[in-house]
Amino acid sequence: MWLRVSCDLAFDVETPTPFILMLRPRSGAEQWIERDEFKIAPNMSIIEFTDGYGNLCQRFVAPKGELTIYTTSDVKTSEFVDVDFGAPFVEIQHLPNDVLCYLLPSRYCESDRFNELANSIIANKMPGYQQVQAIEDWLRHTISYIPGSSVYPTSAIEVNQKGSGVCRDLAHLGIALCRSLSIPARMVVGYLHNLKPMDMHAWFEAYVGGRWYVFDATQTGIKGGYVSVGYGLDAADVAIFNQFGPAVHTLKQRVTVTQIKN
Amino acid sequence: MWLRVSCDLAFDVETPTPFILMLRPRSGAEQWIERDEFKIAPNMSIIEFTDGYGNLCQRFVAPKGELTIYTTSDVKTSEFVDVDFGAPFVEIQHLPNDVLCYLLPSRYCESDRFNELANSIIANKMPGYQQVQAIEDWLRHTISYIPGSSVYPTSAIEVNQKGSGVCRDLAHLGIALCRSLSIPARMVVGYLHNLKPMDMHAWFEAYVGGRWYVFDATQTGIKGGYVSVGYGLDAADVAIFNQFGPAVHTLKQRVTVTQIKN
Amino acid sequence: MWLRVSCDLAFDVETPTPFILMLRPRSGAEQWIERDEFKIAPNMSIIEFTDGYGNLCQRFVAPKGELTIYTTSDVKTSEFVDVDFGAPFVEIQHLPNDVLCYLLPSRYCESDRFNELANSIIANKMPGYQQVQAIEDWLRHTISYIPGSSVYPTSAIEVNQKGSGVCRDLAHLGIALCRSLSIPARMVVGYLHNLKPMDMHAWFEAYVGGRWYVFDATQTGIKGGYVSVGYGLDAADVAIFNQFGPAVHTLKQRVTVTQIKN
Amino acid sequence: MWLRVSCDLAFDVETPTPFILMLRPRSGAEQWIERDEFKIAPNMSIIEFTDGYGNLCQRFVAPKGELTIYTTSDVKTSEFVDVDFGAPFVEIQHLPNDVLCYLLPSRYCESDRFNELANSIIANKMPGYQQVQAIEDWLRHTISYIPGSSVYPTSAIEVNQKGSGVCRDLAHLGIALCRSLSIPARMVVGYLHNLKPMDMHAWFEAYVGGRWYVFDATQTGIKGGYVSVGYGLDAADVAIFNQFGPAVHTLKQRVTVTQIKN
Repeated sequence: MWLRVSCDLAFDVETPTPFILMLRPRSGAEQWIERDEFKIAPNMSIIEFTDGYGNLCQRFVAPKGELTIYTTSDVKTSEFVDVDFGAPFVEIQHLPNDVLCYLLPSRYCESDRFNELANSIIANKMPGYQQVQAIEDWLRHTISYIPGSSVYPTSAIEVNQKGSGVCRDLAHLGIALCRSLSIPARMVVGYLHNLKPMDMHAWFEAYVGGRWYVFDATQTGIKGGYVSVGYGLDAADVAIFNQFGPAVHTLKQRVTVTQIKN
Repeated sequence: MWLRVSCDLAFDVETPTPFILMLRPRSGAEQWIERDEFKIAPNMSIIEFTDGYGNLCQRFVAPKGELTIYTTSDVKTSEFVDVDFGAPFVEIQHLPNDVLCYLLPSRYCESDRFNELANSIIANKMPGYQQVQAIEDWLRHTISYIPGSSVYPTSAIEVNQKGSGVCRDLAHLGIALCRSLSIPARMVVGYLHNLKPMDMHAWFEAYVGGRWYVFDATQTGIKGGYVSVGYGLDAADVAIFNQFGPAVHTLKQRVTVTQIKN
Repeated sequence: MWLRVSCDLAFDVETPTPFILMLRPRSGAEQWIERDEFKIAPNMSIIEFTDGYGNLCQRFVAPKGELTIYTTSDVKTSEFVDVDFGAPFVEIQHLPNDVLCYLLPSRYCESDRFNELANSIIANKMPGYQQVQAIEDWLRHTISYIPGSSVYPTSAIEVNQKGSGVCRDLAHLGIALCRSLSIPARMVVGYLHNLKPMDMHAWFEAYVGGRWYVFDATQTGIKGGYVSVGYGLDAADVAIFNQFGPAVHTLKQRVTVTQIKN
Repeated sequence: MWLRVSCDLAFDVETPTPFILMLRPRSGAEQWIERDEFKIAPNMSIIEFTDGYGNLCQRFVAPKGELTIYTTSDVKTSEFVDVDFGAPFVEIQHLPNDVLCYLLPSRYCESDRFNELANSIIANKMPGYQQVQAIEDWLRHTISYIPGSSVYPTSAIEVNQKGSGVCRDLAHLGIALCRSLSIPARMVVGYLHNLKPMDMHAWFEAYVGGRWYVFDATQTGIKGGYVSVGYGLDAADVAIFNQFGPAVHTLKQRVTVTQIKN
């Protein structure tokens, strides 16, 4: 399916402020960016670079005044994410070198503290995809998905204690549980078709059967229509914007996703 | 200045044929891509990856039939390339690690065979920018720039013997001469505003004074309006398309560059 | 000064167990490895790779039985670590791309929760080296350094609450405080001459004045003799060994550091 | 088998001279470095870095006077290199991204000019290992291997015209022939047990059947005992030393390889 996605941001900047953005989706095996627009005003010097996870990031110093950022892309993505209940657990010695980092605990995914819980969730499941599926199901039934309920990222431990969270929070707990079982898992930020309420979204991917699979405990009816913008260990790596210095006032954050072709 | 660039390609493919393209310009310190379109027909699986020089490349297998590729971008670039006659030679020990590879001889830049010629050209010039300027001037006066005069890349030795060449050929000789003096130099392929006749273009950059500077022996009146698409050691690294297997028939290659704003 | 360092490990492995080691120091700007031995028994297939932070890591699957690892190096390192009270804070827009990741919160360094404390510690200090020095001093006076007091890594929040910790813990808190001030900071694991009691050691580095400087709140008398083995965001990235599956029994961990020449 | 390899170099340096060395073998899937010594005199600041092909390189500026470099390693390597006559040609679309660069022509391997010769050599051979084997056989019978017959690297075209060459030259022609058939091929510099006369050696590897295989047209009796020190497109990338500025006088280059255990 073809989606047109957009993110429209505006900030009130009181003092010259360094920003790092992560808002340009990349073409890859799972999606193709056919059209891309990226407008930032006022006019200033912007440098784009690739971070350690392969994401395209933009650096600049916003001057005092209103800062507006508008990005839109036309993306070919799958109507149904791939599912393979038979995808097996990959033994550590067979993981590619660059996947190993997704086994480590990270800021919001304290996987070193979840081994017991993870083992209780996946009891009797076949190692691999079915374990991750069990984790996704457990999240869906145990952690209430309440969009807009948290502003700052909370960690897997906090989410588990609280019993509820935003998309990012459920992903953090899912990732922590996977990693505690030595299943590589990573955070994805991006767009999702038909997400309600519409906003930037977050989900996670797990590496089983020799590739990454999408998991999203916040959804039941939606089966595809994902557009990835950034990958990382957790929310610390995939902020759509990082701003340094005194906080800026967000005037607008408007996200749209519309289907433009089959 | 703001330029709208486009490249429109069509091929007649007789048997399923693997392609690797290098046609998506990247935002960086010198240019900002505000809008980007990349259309390939027929519909097929395309994988984009980053090569060893940081270029975005696209891989796919074109099926039998007509293959069309259309890419266009709106780019902010400088009206005048930076010039600094005082930029000094950078001693080897002060070159960044990732610049060192641009000192090595490469397929079409046999810098190991040009030391004598280079030294005669730069006699009495201050080490650094002025030496490269002398090389660019020498190329302009010595090697006739004849667009369309060669189809396949020729090497610096061949260009020097022949005394004429296309943009790519002059760049190869310029690069070979720079490297023979231990000045890092690299090939750039891209677009140039007001190029006559309009086509994809090639020029070179030399690393002096701690950064890369643009040099282009094919032009005199033009001072800016460059849009970089790919970087590499020479033409071997920056083909806008590489095609494997039996040759395909090129039906169309049309390039446009128009100014859309100041 | 020239140091001979060694680490001698033995494990009782009950079932075939994947290991990833980080025990081979690399030569760099700050140290030169003149001699290096790395012995692992029993004989098995070992693959060495470079992780995302540039560390040399070794992967293998240890069979059932005793696993012994012995590594020793002769290293030239500085007798006095560099100190520069005038090294200024580097504004975000001037940080190299590959330093930016060291601004992010990480598993054991929840820098997003330390802004208030950090600001109270560095009140009136000149931005840059002197702020990090104030943080190091504060750690030394506030957090008791008790070698052997924790087995598993604890996070900056936990260390701050507890008021004591091992070398790794003090480094975590120091890193979190630096990053909360937008000063890049990273974890280092390695050897330290005259450390008492002798063991593998951990400290941190902060990026000010355009380079990395060593800080170590656990020491007062020692001024140099550091040998770096691994770098990362925090202890999650720089475990000298990561072992997967059922826990293995550590039979021996013996570390030595002796001076062999001036 | 376990080999002790060493390279002992001495130069007479007349003016401070930048050097880049490639003399530290790395552990990998095919070899394990158990012991490593690397001594450079006089004492000076040396920086080690990893180049674009993963090689460990050392940079320094040698002062006026005698420069000595001594490096030795104990290495576990295979007594017989892997051979698989059934390893098939890997279609371009299935090559890993980081293998693609080994399809390109390079300084000393003008693969763009060898298609006709290559096709005549591999007539009727099964695509893949058997084609490379045919190329190796053809080299062995057609190009005389004359150690010491060339000082500077010569290119595949030159080697083919001349009909003889050193190890490096035969490797260049083998690589060019492979690449002209879309088989990725790379240069390796290193040590070889029982090489006569003993010196640093060069051979090539071809990527078939999903991995790299060793080929060496200079040998017939020897079946293993290879120790790799550097990888690259050709000799331009894998010089054991690169020296900049006025030529230095080589006082000594002595290489040894002895078996120390089975």
